[in-house]
Amino acid sequence: MTDIQTRSDVTVELVKHSATDSDVATAARVSTIGGSHENTVDLARDKGLINYLMRDRHGSPFEHTSFTFYVEAPLFVAREHMRHRAGHSFNEESGRYKELAPVFYVPAPERNLIQVGKPGAYRFEPGNPVLGLLTRSTMDDAYRAAYDYYQDLLASGVAREVARMVLPVGIFTSYYVTTNARSLMHFLGLRTISQAAAFPSFPQREIEMVAEKMEDHLAEQMPLTYAAFNRNKRVAP
Amino acid sequence: MTDIQTRSDVTVELVKHSATDSDVATAARVSTIGGSHENTVDLARDKGLINYLMRDRHGSPFEHTSFTFYVEAPLFVAREHMRHRAGHSFNEESGRYKELAPVFYVPAPERNLIQVGKPGAYRFEPGNPVLGLLTRSTMDDAYRAAYDYYQDLLASGVAREVARMVLPVGIFTSYYVTTNARSLMHFLGLRTISQAAAFPSFPQREIEMVAEKMEDHLAEQMPLTYAAFNRNKRVAP
Amino acid sequence: MTDIQTRSDVTVELVKHSATDSDVATAARVSTIGGSHENTVDLARDKGLINYLMRDRHGSPFEHTSFTFYVEAPLFVAREHMRHRAGHSFNEESGRYKELAPVFYVPAPERNLIQVGKPGAYRFEPGNPVLGLLTRSTMDDAYRAAYDYYQDLLASGVAREVARMVLPVGIFTSYYVTTNARSLMHFLGLRTISQAAAFPSFPQREIEMVAEKMEDHLAEQMPLTYAAFNRNKRVAP
Amino acid sequence: MTDIQTRSDVTVELVKHSATDSDVATAARVSTIGGSHENTVDLARDKGLINYLMRDRHGSPFEHTSFTFYVEAPLFVAREHMRHRAGHSFNEESGRYKELAPVFYVPAPERNLIQVGKPGAYRFEPGNPVLGLLTRSTMDDAYRAAYDYYQDLLASGVAREVARMVLPVGIFTSYYVTTNARSLMHFLGLRTISQAAAFPSFPQREIEMVAEKMEDHLAEQMPLTYAAFNRNKRVAP
Repeated sequence: MTDIQTRSDVTVELVKHSATDSDVATAARVSTIGGSHENTVDLARDKGLINYLMRDRHGSPFEHTSFTFYVEAPLFVAREHMRHRAGHSFNEESGRYKELAPVFYVPAPERNLIQVGKPGAYRFEPGNPVLGLLTRSTMDDAYRAAYDYYQDLLASGVAREVARMVLPVGIFTSYYVTTNARSLMHFLGLRTISQAAAFPSFPQREIEMVAEKMEDHLAEQMPLTYAAFNRNKRVAP
Repeated sequence: MTDIQTRSDVTVELVKHSATDSDVATAARVSTIGGSHENTVDLARDKGLINYLMRDRHGSPFEHTSFTFYVEAPLFVAREHMRHRAGHSFNEESGRYKELAPVFYVPAPERNLIQVGKPGAYRFEPGNPVLGLLTRSTMDDAYRAAYDYYQDLLASGVAREVARMVLPVGIFTSYYVTTNARSLMHFLGLRTISQAAAFPSFPQREIEMVAEKMEDHLAEQMPLTYAAFNRNKRVAP
Repeated sequence: MTDIQTRSDVTVELVKHSATDSDVATAARVSTIGGSHENTVDLARDKGLINYLMRDRHGSPFEHTSFTFYVEAPLFVAREHMRHRAGHSFNEESGRYKELAPVFYVPAPERNLIQVGKPGAYRFEPGNPVLGLLTRSTMDDAYRAAYDYYQDLLASGVAREVARMVLPVGIFTSYYVTTNARSLMHFLGLRTISQAAAFPSFPQREIEMVAEKMEDHLAEQMPLTYAAFNRNKRVAP
Repeated sequence: MTDIQTRSDVTVELVKHSATDSDVATAARVSTIGGSHENTVDLARDKGLINYLMRDRHGSPFEHTSFTFYVEAPLFVAREHMRHRAGHSFNEESGRYKELAPVFYVPAPERNLIQVGKPGAYRFEPGNPVLGLLTRSTMDDAYRAAYDYYQDLLASGVAREVARMVLPVGIFTSYYVTTNARSLMHFLGLRTISQAAAFPSFPQREIEMVAEKMEDHLAEQMPLTYAAFNRNKRVAP
């Protein structure tokens, strides 16, 4: 039996970025001033302008920014992430071109496992600790079995793209995603839960873990934009 | 043990469409004539116009058309399909909102299983019949085991969105996809293999099976557009 | 001197559509039911589902619909319209391929002409009736002069694409636009003024005239979607 | 009479960028290698990989790059530019929010003025020098008259958004455009004329002037990508 590895976290690295609050303000000011501008930072004026843009839903100035992230997450998270189309570019590890490594996701003890309520209004609750142990143990068995079948198929000479059909969506994948601040805020609005939000969201916890890490990078690189996003109830412009 | 079902085919149904060659010609003629037009069909003139649009890469007139398909395909096919962003809208069966049915994909006997060559220039070959039997039998076992683990997790009270992590990418999913003729041709150019194509494509066979069925519908609903696509080497405008 | 024609209205014709409330409900139900569905109309259930989708910002089901409009509007309106990218396809009359007709926009007597307030918080007021007369008369003179220069340039043998440089943005153009219900609602949210809206919008009156006519068609073809849009404060999902 | 200014050139400044050949290669390698990579530059290997991606139409790796340009061009050029949707973000000087400056485009002496041939197969020829002089003189008169009408309307108290209706499409505007290498190559493929191109293009000369300046920046920042674009007949992947 191959050894498998399990993880309960996700990786999000900011590979590169070209994204400042000043980029937003500069692009917006072409509307009212025209002409070429020095990229001067005037925090006081930029703050008011950025808040106004967010409040009145002038979204395009936020697009003149770029973030490239490297992500490691289970495949079912990648699937949800790649539903985002506008302002999102992806390149992902391929089960056709390489043999996938035996790294799988299992929920951490603090991850709620029980779903309560009716469709459209679910909430999640912990379940008892024994359920958590049982779940992780069952998933471990399931992953191990699946990966062994995968290895058997590869060993018999079957192409990677066929053998991978037996691999579960809990396996880890890796991808690059490039997006801009507007599309990133749209993603955050849908994929995080926040008391500050005007509209309720019900993301699966695992994509929210990816979103939270991206949110930290937005907050760090574009503090005025991030503050305006929260102040205006986390509705992307 | 739950009974599982295996399939080696995919389903593509044309649910509805608003797509004719005449739609393309009418939209294109606004450039040169202006004004409102009767949607008159003049096959001879439309044929020349549509071929000219395709040849000189005037893509936008082909966008005033709409096809909605219902698809049943394995999840690894849905993943590839949903990488297409421009002019593509998707809604898919959700492993969060429903229990997934035990229907899984296995390659048909005629599906090539062996990959030969080096990265960037692979070709596929049949393999011997015993390999085919062995592959289908192994996949059957793998699917059965995975679905049993899934059932165990559900039975223990774990939420569907957690339990599904052990399900393999060979499980069937279903989705609606709405697209226009331009985006559909772009999809076909990348996801089918054809001697008529100016650019080589290397789609996995299973998404090509979906693409071929969509191609039949394009050919039937928009024969002039389809002929021009092939005549111009299957490069979407 | 060439005779010119002036208009104070815009034309919006619904050329074709494939768009019903049932399309939205059917696409949404694939998430929870899966499998192929009869396109049965159950108004009571659809109404609740559509309102839920709008409220919780599930936008994609609204994309499986298509409207194609034919529009006649001044060129400055077409410019604003064509800033909309997602889910919008355009083909427009071309000043390169045809001689543009002498039809120009002048504000109707009821169009407010005076801008009051500071940047970011303008409002418009009527101005006195004499100002209206003077404005229309000045614009008439300006249009006539511009069109004469255009005719002079064409008569001298200069290409249409060069001669048209002297034509004003008040000249009428015509175009086809194809969009879906989601993108249409986004457009309406930004390009109309409504007391029902959660977010303020400040469209120029002339593009609002186009938007209002499109809104009528949405209301007629998709009454449940339209009601849910208003009920949820005209924020497109 | 107001003094007006005429120009026969366009301005394209690269405001900022996050775009190297290495960005493309790194994103592409995640498919075959997976895992996080050092952004090491290995020109020899990158060159082969980038050429392969271009040839086989793997477009997405080229999207992990970002260019922001500041452009000054006549309004009829901005209109053509803003027809590009995928991977394009724009913010433009607004005739609603500011008084437009009296700067207008006139063709340079070397700009061909005569259009010869039939629709779909035009070519342009110089015309005699007298025609050039006459054209520039007529356009100068037309622009001057239009700008005077504009000033009259503003002086009478009419809102800027109304007064600007008389301004011609030859007036200069300014805008920021942010795009990625894939979308930029698509733009270049349609808006430049080149013997190296597999598909013929017929751009108006003035947008080609903008495109040529952007092309210089692509060539400078991403030399391997640019060489592969030309080698593969200027068809964007």
